[in-house]
Amino acid sequence: MGYTAAVAGASGYAGGELLRLLLDHPEMEVGALTAGGSAGSRLGEHQPHLMPLADRVLAETTVDTLAGHDAVFLALPHGQSAAIAEQLGRDVLVVDCGADFRLTDARAWERYYGTPHAGTWPYGLPEMPGARAALAGTRRIAVPGCHVATATLALMPALARALVEPDAVVVSVTGTSGAGKAPKPHLMGSETMGAVSPYGVGGTHRHTPEIVQNLSEAAGTPVTLSFTPVLAPMPRGILATCTAPLRDGATAERITAAYRERYADEPFVHLLPEGTWPSTAMTLAANSALVQVTVDPDAGRLVAVAALDNLTKGTAGGALQSANIALGLPEDSGLPVTGVAP
Amino acid sequence: MGYTAAVAGASGYAGGELLRLLLDHPEMEVGALTAGGSAGSRLGEHQPHLMPLADRVLAETTVDTLAGHDAVFLALPHGQSAAIAEQLGRDVLVVDCGADFRLTDARAWERYYGTPHAGTWPYGLPEMPGARAALAGTRRIAVPGCHVATATLALMPALARALVEPDAVVVSVTGTSGAGKAPKPHLMGSETMGAVSPYGVGGTHRHTPEIVQNLSEAAGTPVTLSFTPVLAPMPRGILATCTAPLRDGATAERITAAYRERYADEPFVHLLPEGTWPSTAMTLAANSALVQVTVDPDAGRLVAVAALDNLTKGTAGGALQSANIALGLPEDSGLPVTGVAP
Amino acid sequence: MGYTAAVAGASGYAGGELLRLLLDHPEMEVGALTAGGSAGSRLGEHQPHLMPLADRVLAETTVDTLAGHDAVFLALPHGQSAAIAEQLGRDVLVVDCGADFRLTDARAWERYYGTPHAGTWPYGLPEMPGARAALAGTRRIAVPGCHVATATLALMPALARALVEPDAVVVSVTGTSGAGKAPKPHLMGSETMGAVSPYGVGGTHRHTPEIVQNLSEAAGTPVTLSFTPVLAPMPRGILATCTAPLRDGATAERITAAYRERYADEPFVHLLPEGTWPSTAMTLAANSALVQVTVDPDAGRLVAVAALDNLTKGTAGGALQSANIALGLPEDSGLPVTGVAP
Amino acid sequence: MGYTAAVAGASGYAGGELLRLLLDHPEMEVGALTAGGSAGSRLGEHQPHLMPLADRVLAETTVDTLAGHDAVFLALPHGQSAAIAEQLGRDVLVVDCGADFRLTDARAWERYYGTPHAGTWPYGLPEMPGARAALAGTRRIAVPGCHVATATLALMPALARALVEPDAVVVSVTGTSGAGKAPKPHLMGSETMGAVSPYGVGGTHRHTPEIVQNLSEAAGTPVTLSFTPVLAPMPRGILATCTAPLRDGATAERITAAYRERYADEPFVHLLPEGTWPSTAMTLAANSALVQVTVDPDAGRLVAVAALDNLTKGTAGGALQSANIALGLPEDSGLPVTGVAP
Repeated sequence: MGYTAAVAGASGYAGGELLRLLLDHPEMEVGALTAGGSAGSRLGEHQPHLMPLADRVLAETTVDTLAGHDAVFLALPHGQSAAIAEQLGRDVLVVDCGADFRLTDARAWERYYGTPHAGTWPYGLPEMPGARAALAGTRRIAVPGCHVATATLALMPALARALVEPDAVVVSVTGTSGAGKAPKPHLMGSETMGAVSPYGVGGTHRHTPEIVQNLSEAAGTPVTLSFTPVLAPMPRGILATCTAPLRDGATAERITAAYRERYADEPFVHLLPEGTWPSTAMTLAANSALVQVTVDPDAGRLVAVAALDNLTKGTAGGALQSANIALGLPEDSGLPVTGVAP
Repeated sequence: MGYTAAVAGASGYAGGELLRLLLDHPEMEVGALTAGGSAGSRLGEHQPHLMPLADRVLAETTVDTLAGHDAVFLALPHGQSAAIAEQLGRDVLVVDCGADFRLTDARAWERYYGTPHAGTWPYGLPEMPGARAALAGTRRIAVPGCHVATATLALMPALARALVEPDAVVVSVTGTSGAGKAPKPHLMGSETMGAVSPYGVGGTHRHTPEIVQNLSEAAGTPVTLSFTPVLAPMPRGILATCTAPLRDGATAERITAAYRERYADEPFVHLLPEGTWPSTAMTLAANSALVQVTVDPDAGRLVAVAALDNLTKGTAGGALQSANIALGLPEDSGLPVTGVAP
Repeated sequence: MGYTAAVAGASGYAGGELLRLLLDHPEMEVGALTAGGSAGSRLGEHQPHLMPLADRVLAETTVDTLAGHDAVFLALPHGQSAAIAEQLGRDVLVVDCGADFRLTDARAWERYYGTPHAGTWPYGLPEMPGARAALAGTRRIAVPGCHVATATLALMPALARALVEPDAVVVSVTGTSGAGKAPKPHLMGSETMGAVSPYGVGGTHRHTPEIVQNLSEAAGTPVTLSFTPVLAPMPRGILATCTAPLRDGATAERITAAYRERYADEPFVHLLPEGTWPSTAMTLAANSALVQVTVDPDAGRLVAVAALDNLTKGTAGGALQSANIALGLPEDSGLPVTGVAP
Repeated sequence: MGYTAAVAGASGYAGGELLRLLLDHPEMEVGALTAGGSAGSRLGEHQPHLMPLADRVLAETTVDTLAGHDAVFLALPHGQSAAIAEQLGRDVLVVDCGADFRLTDARAWERYYGTPHAGTWPYGLPEMPGARAALAGTRRIAVPGCHVATATLALMPALARALVEPDAVVVSVTGTSGAGKAPKPHLMGSETMGAVSPYGVGGTHRHTPEIVQNLSEAAGTPVTLSFTPVLAPMPRGILATCTAPLRDGATAERITAAYRERYADEPFVHLLPEGTWPSTAMTLAANSALVQVTVDPDAGRLVAVAALDNLTKGTAGGALQSANIALGLPEDSGLPVTGVAP
C-alpha cells in the first residue's frame, strides 16, 4: 500500500464507486471519508454494499480532514472543488470528479454554469491525444463528464482522421445514477421505471460545451454538436449513438481501420467484432468502454456507438485510471476490465 | 354493436392490444380469434390480462375463419397478408398491422424485405396530409411501423413548412414488446433489464425506407435519413429524438407555431406545454402521441421529440383509429386518450 | 352523467388513479380537484397521463371546495379525513382511501397509528361477507389497504369454511407506487431497480391489524397473522403468498370447490384455471384480483396466492366499486376488468 | 497461479459467473471452457462482459477436454455430472453446481428429479455445521441450490439453538437469472418486467427437499417446510422471508445473540445492524449473504430474512469458496465481499 486516498462526497454514487474500486486497488489505502449533510453517520447507512467500510464514520468535508493523504478524490457538487484544492498543497494529487476544471473556455463555463471560471486542470480522459503526457506527474486532474467520455470515445478517431465533417449529432441514453442520489420527484422508482425521456434538450445540457471541446480538439477544427441526453430505466450505463456526415473517400474499411488502430493499444476501450454492437449490459461495473462503427451509405453518414458504465469508466474508474498515471502506477491498477452480467 | 371484427394473430402482442381496445369499442364486437402455432389453445393461456376472452379458443388463421366479419385485423408475420386479403372480398375491411402494403416504392420493398412487392394500401397514419381522405371508405389499410409513426409525427410539421433541411437524424428508443413475443436469447428478461443497445444500425432497419417515404411526402422533396433504433429496458413505449438543420428564418417561434397549428385539431397528438418534454411513461396504454420541439442555435438545428406507446398509438390503436375512419365511425371510438401511470 | 365527484389529493398516485377511472365512468363527472402543497398548479404538471384534465388547476383541499359534489374521494395522508368528512354533510358520499376509518378496534388503531381513533365506516371490500349490504346506500366508505385487500381475498374462502387453522403467514410483494409520490431516498429509481427488500417486518406494518380484522371476521374466530410486506422493482402490483395449516379433511378438492363457489359470482375476483398462478402483470390497470390455491401435503398447508394492481383494485378501483354500490349504480360501472399487458 | 480450473457450461449464467470470479482469483488460472450447443463459438458471443476471454473458443464438454486440470467446475443441466465425474479421476477437484449430488435421501431425489440417485458429495455450504471439515481436502463438492443457501442461512441459527419450532414457512423472491439462459416465453423481458409471480408452489420446487435436509440437520430433528419461490423483475438476487413459531423463552435478545454468535466469524455472512433489513441491491456481484431477524410477539413467530446474489454466493461464489477450502487455499481467495451499487 504505497498511497493513501481520501474521498470527499463518500455518501454519494460517485463516492461509493470510488470506494468500491479503491478497496480493490493494490497500491491505495482508503483514508478519510467525508460528506456534507451525512457527516457523522456510518458509511454503512449510505453504502451498504461496501461492507468492509460499513463502520467507518463520515467526517465533515474540510481541508483538515482531507489533508495528509497522497490523493484526494472530490465527488462534490459543482463549485466546491476550487477552494478545497487551493488549500491542499501542490504535492497532493487532487482528482475532481466535478465539472469545475474541465473547460478551457471561460466564456463557455460562465454561460453553462453561471459562475466565474475556476481554471483548467489536466483532463482525465487518458485516451485523448496528449492526455497521458499531461497526466503523468500532475497533481490536479479534472475527470470528464460521463456523457462526454462516451461521446468522445465514439467519435474521436473519425474526427482525428478527418473522415467525417465536424458536425455531430449525439443522442446519449443513460441510467438514473448519473442524476445523483438527492431525492427528486422525477427520479423516483415509480416515475423512472417504464420511462424514457430526454432532458437538457437543445444544447442546454452542461456536458455540451465539454463534448464540443473534446471533439474540436480531436478534429483540430471547431465541431458543431447537437447533443441530447435521454434518461432510461436502469441504474447504470450510458449508450451514445453518434453520427456525422462522411467526407469524400471515407469508406467503411478506412473508418474501421482508423478505429482499430486508434484503440488497439488502449487497455479500456474495445472496438467490438464486426456486427456486434455495444450494450450497457456488457459494461456494468467495468472500467471498459465498448465501441462499434458503421457507414450508412444512403444517409452519407458514419454511425458510431459507444457504451460504458457512467459510474465506472464514466466517473470513478476514469478518475482512478488517470490517478494511476499521475502517480506513476500501472494505468490499470485496481481497475476491472471485466463487467458483471447479467 | 354495429360491426364484427376478427383478429388474426391474436396470441401475439399486437393482437392482444387490438383485443384490449376492441373489448372497449362501442361499435365493434370481437369475432374470430386466430393464431398460427397456438391454434387450438385458449386465449387465456396467451393473454391472461384479457379476462373476458379467456375461454375463447384460437382458430387456425384461414380465410374461412376470417370471412364473414365486417373488419379483419391482421397481426401476422410479414408476407402473409396479401394471400389472405385477396380472398376476403373487397367489401371486408382488412387492416394490416404488418409491413406488406406500407411502401409505395417496390424497389425499396425488395431491398429491405427481399420478397416481391405486394402493393400499396391506404396508409393508416391519419395525421398525415391527405390520409383521412384516403382512409374514408377504404376497405384496405396499411398500419405504419411503430418507429415510423413516432418519427413522422415528430418531424412532419417542420418539414411540411420547409423550416428544416430535408436531412434528418432519428434515434428512436423503444421497449421490448416491439420485437414480438417469440422467445429469443437477447430478448430474455435477464438480458434486457439493465441493457440499452442499438439494433439495425446504419440504415438497415426496415422502418428506414418507410420513415423516408413519410418525411419525403411531408417535405415535398426527398429526405435523407439516419435512423438508429435503440432497445431499452421497458415493455412498451417509443421515444424518438429527431433533429434536422434549421433553414434560414426558422425561429423557435415559427417552429412552435407550425407544430401548434398542425396538431391543434388532432385528437391524439399533443404538443406539450413549453418546457415539458415527452416521456414514454406519459403514454402507456393510451392512443396518444406527445410532441415537443426546440431550437438549438449553436448547432443550427431543430430538435423534435415524440413519445407514444408502440402497441397502442404505434400499432393497435393506430389501426383502430384508421378503421374507425374507414367505417365512418367517430375517429376516437374506443380509443383511450388517457394513459396509465405510474 | 348523474353524479359529480371531487377528488382530494389529486396530485398523488391514488388520486391520479381515481381520476383515470372517473374519466371513463359513465355516470360520474369529475368535479373539484384539490391538493396540499401542489394547490395552484395545473394537474398536467403532476399527472401528464391524464390529458383531458391537463389544464385543470388544483384547488386547496378545503371543505368549501369539496362541498356540493355527490361524491368526494379522499386520497389524503392519514388523519386528515375525519375533519373534512364531518363538515361535508351526511348526504355526501365520502370515500376515504386512507386508513382513518378502517379499523373497528380503537386500541389496535391507537397502537398502530398513535392517534385517537376516529371511528369506523362501512368497509369497502365488497367481496367480504355482508359488505355489499353495508355499503348499499351508505354515505361513508373506508377503502381497505392494498396489502389487506390482497391477503383477504387470498385467504377468506378457506377461513370462512374452516378448512385451515386461524394461523396465517402472508408475504406480500408490492411495487413502489404503494409508498406514494413524496420523494424519499430509498424509493429513488437508482435504489429500487434491482432491489427486493422487506419493510415493516415483525408485525409492525399498519396493514397488519386490518388483515387480522378481516381474516378474523371471515373465520369467525381470532386469526393469528405473520405479515411481511416486500418491495419489488415495479411501479404497480401486489402478489401475496399466503399459507395456513390445513384442518383435517381439507382436501385440495374441497378447498378448490370452496374458492370456486365463493368467487363464482364475483365480477372482479377470478379463480384461475388449475395450474395457472397469478402474476402482477396480468392485472395492471385492471380492477381484477386473481387467485389460485393449492395444497402442500408434506407441509400440511394451504398455499393461496392473490395478485392485483395496488392502485386499481387495491385502492382507486376498489373505492369506485364500493361507491357504485353505495350510489345504487351497477357495481362494475367504469371499472376495467381487462388489464394492460405486456 | 498454483491451479488450473476448467469450466463446463461456460456459456451459461453460472458458468459466466464462475469465469468472472476465476479471472480475479490469485491462485487459479482459467483452463478449458466447454459448452453443449455453443461449442465451437467464441466465448465473447455468449459472455461479452468477460472481455479478457472474448476470443477463447468453447470446446465440447467431454472428459478429454476437462481432464488435466486441478479443478473442474460443472455448470451443467441436471443428470450430466455423474458420468463426467466418474471418469475424471479421484485426484481432480470436481465442483458440481448442479443438483445431482446434493441430496442424501435417495427417495427424495427420485421423487423430485425422477431419475436414479447418483450419490451424495460433501456439501458446499461452508457455513453449515461440520461443512468445512468435510470440505477440507475433498475432491468432490455439491454446490447448494440458490434458494437453499439463502433459506438455510436465514433459519439455521434459530433452529440449531432450538429457539423455534421445526416448522418453517419460506417465501423466496428471486431474479430471472436463476431460471437460466435458455429462451422461454415466460422469461422474456416483455413478460418479466412488471411481473411478480410464484412458481413451483405447494412444495413442488426441487429446492424443497434440499432446504428440508439442511434445516433438519441444523435442528437435529425433521423440519416441516412450506416453500414458495417467487419471480421478480431483476436479473440477479434472492431475498428469502422465513418464519417459524417461537419456542418458549425465545426472546428477541436470545435470538439476536444466537445469530450474532453464529455468524461472528463468518467471512461472507453478515448480520446487519438492528433495524436494517437486507436488500438484494446490497449484494449484487458480491459473495456476501446478509441476514436480519426479529420477533413478532403477536404472531409468536421469528421472522428471519436473508439476501444474496443467486449467481455469486448462491452459485459460483459459493462454489469457489468451497473449492478454496478443498484445495487448502484461504477461504476468501478471489471472492468479493463488496457488492456493486446502485
